[in-house]
Amino acid sequence: MTTSATGADRLPVDFDDVERAAGRLAGVAHRTPVLRSSTLDAACQAQVFLKSEHLQRVGAFKFRGAYNALAALDPQVRSRGVVAFSSGNHAQAVALAARLLGVHATIVMPLDAPPVKMAATRGYGAEVVTYDRYTEDRRAIGQSIADERGATVIPPYDHPDVIAGQATAALELLDEVPDLDAVIAPVGGGGLLAGTAVAVRTRRPSATIVGVEPAGRRAARDALARGEVVQVAVPRTLLDGQQTPEIGTRNLALFQAHVDRVEGVEDADALAAVRLLATRLKQVVEPSGASALGALLAGGLPDLRGARVGVLLSGGNVAPAVLAAALNAAD
Amino acid sequence: MTTSATGADRLPVDFDDVERAAGRLAGVAHRTPVLRSSTLDAACQAQVFLKSEHLQRVGAFKFRGAYNALAALDPQVRSRGVVAFSSGNHAQAVALAARLLGVHATIVMPLDAPPVKMAATRGYGAEVVTYDRYTEDRRAIGQSIADERGATVIPPYDHPDVIAGQATAALELLDEVPDLDAVIAPVGGGGLLAGTAVAVRTRRPSATIVGVEPAGRRAARDALARGEVVQVAVPRTLLDGQQTPEIGTRNLALFQAHVDRVEGVEDADALAAVRLLATRLKQVVEPSGASALGALLAGGLPDLRGARVGVLLSGGNVAPAVLAAALNAAD
Repeated sequence: MTTSATGADRLPVDFDDVERAAGRLAGVAHRTPVLRSSTLDAACQAQVFLKSEHLQRVGAFKFRGAYNALAALDPQVRSRGVVAFSSGNHAQAVALAARLLGVHATIVMPLDAPPVKMAATRGYGAEVVTYDRYTEDRRAIGQSIADERGATVIPPYDHPDVIAGQATAALELLDEVPDLDAVIAPVGGGGLLAGTAVAVRTRRPSATIVGVEPAGRRAARDALARGEVVQVAVPRTLLDGQQTPEIGTRNLALFQAHVDRVEGVEDADALAAVRLLATRLKQVVEPSGASALGALLAGGLPDLRGARVGVLLSGGNVAPAVLAAALNAAD
Repeated sequence: MTTSATGADRLPVDFDDVERAAGRLAGVAHRTPVLRSSTLDAACQAQVFLKSEHLQRVGAFKFRGAYNALAALDPQVRSRGVVAFSSGNHAQAVALAARLLGVHATIVMPLDAPPVKMAATRGYGAEVVTYDRYTEDRRAIGQSIADERGATVIPPYDHPDVIAGQATAALELLDEVPDLDAVIAPVGGGGLLAGTAVAVRTRRPSATIVGVEPAGRRAARDALARGEVVQVAVPRTLLDGQQTPEIGTRNLALFQAHVDRVEGVEDADALAAVRLLATRLKQVVEPSGASALGALLAGGLPDLRGARVGVLLSGGNVAPAVLAAALNAAD
């Protein structure tokens, strides 16, 4: 399936949306720290400022977008509940946001999702509805639950309020470090990069904005090259937060307006970043969450040498065995 | 060798010493964050405040004591250089402190010390002198270098300025959370616990002060029971920061004056704390560094149930393979 990008004059998210999101998230989302390391600077040949969303609630930036989307709903609509289909960080983000706002959340997850993720989602008070991922369509199930109950589906990335929420991470980064030369962020469905681009292009127009996706998944690069959303085959990758086969339509429009380019990163380079973050900065970041740093560390962004670079670390929810494997590769 | 504890009326370190150390360290040591987690609180059945010295310079609280000891030296004495014998965090702490104060540091390390540790110590600008740990005595070598050069030996724990420096971590913790019911800290040679005890007993006299050492190493417990320093056999343990066969004479005197008790912790319980810190708080802490938390988490401190407990996380310098093994034990 391909869908053409919106050709409308007005972009799906503007800076006012981001500021409104920041207002809703104040005192609710963590204002995550910006970490620095002289070892990291030397390894990257740049001045690196790490916006640490692995320390965000639910362990990922996803909480920002989910909470903003729920908070932006009309209270009467919101009171009928929300629905999400995800086995990842978005599920937990919607579950926690719903609990904080006192509404019911239904999360549609595959029957064979990791029990620890199901338990975590239930732990946030959500109802988990399972489906067979080989015979059933999670979108259809989610939509039918939503229709039945009058509940609202909260999509993971292709939604203006979700994008505006994700943008607040970069907004905080620029509040703390206004004079960045560049900002780089991981790209999966594109919500984080799209939001980041809106915030950075307004607050620091001169900054270079770069997205990073798995080398073998060209969803963002192909979409930018063709000017339309493209569904791509996704090879095996440890960058499991970026396995989405397409980016969102709204996200593409914002990439086209604001993003300088998207680069690919090899799994091994993202894992090297995971290792360096663990051994030197004592921080646990998931492979996808470290993918933008991995590209910089591997020398894949030579135009940023010597620059002041903001890097989004997007999440820290890594399976212990995956982190262990990354660490053992270092010895 | 046994040495009797100082029976002098005046204790080796008092609160004035701690305040002087805090003055010397201001703007030099990191003011490390105090981390919280509702998951951790639930698991410990207490309100837990984690003073995060794994995020200190050189990755451990040791920087505080080393820098304070060097800064307290008469400038003329200091200019003749310093010597330390250590293959661990103290070596790097002395090396960095010396570099910051512009003096020469000689670190005596075993020939077969991990190359990564030697490189790190040299990276801080120190001269590394190696010895054969099977045939030579590091103390004799260190002392002869010091005598030759007029340099000063900086001991790792049994020294008033080292103890006063380590005390500043607990001082900062109490600045941020004044109303703690208890403070618990790991014990190796005893510098951290002794300093912690001075700071806590002055600032929060009612607080319970507990030390935690490896279950199989009774150096602190036996010394307290007998009223004198005892040299003990140290079994194999992953708590490598606490393998010292004895505590210091000054440290014992301060334990006797201020510490309520010392408890043992099993390796497995410390590793469970390492895992929980990695998976939930996204923090990399070394097994010794997490040993006090491990005792609390394992239910070994039942009198602290429901209490507001400050816990010293003392360091984060764990070999990647050790962290990997701890993580794999969780699956």
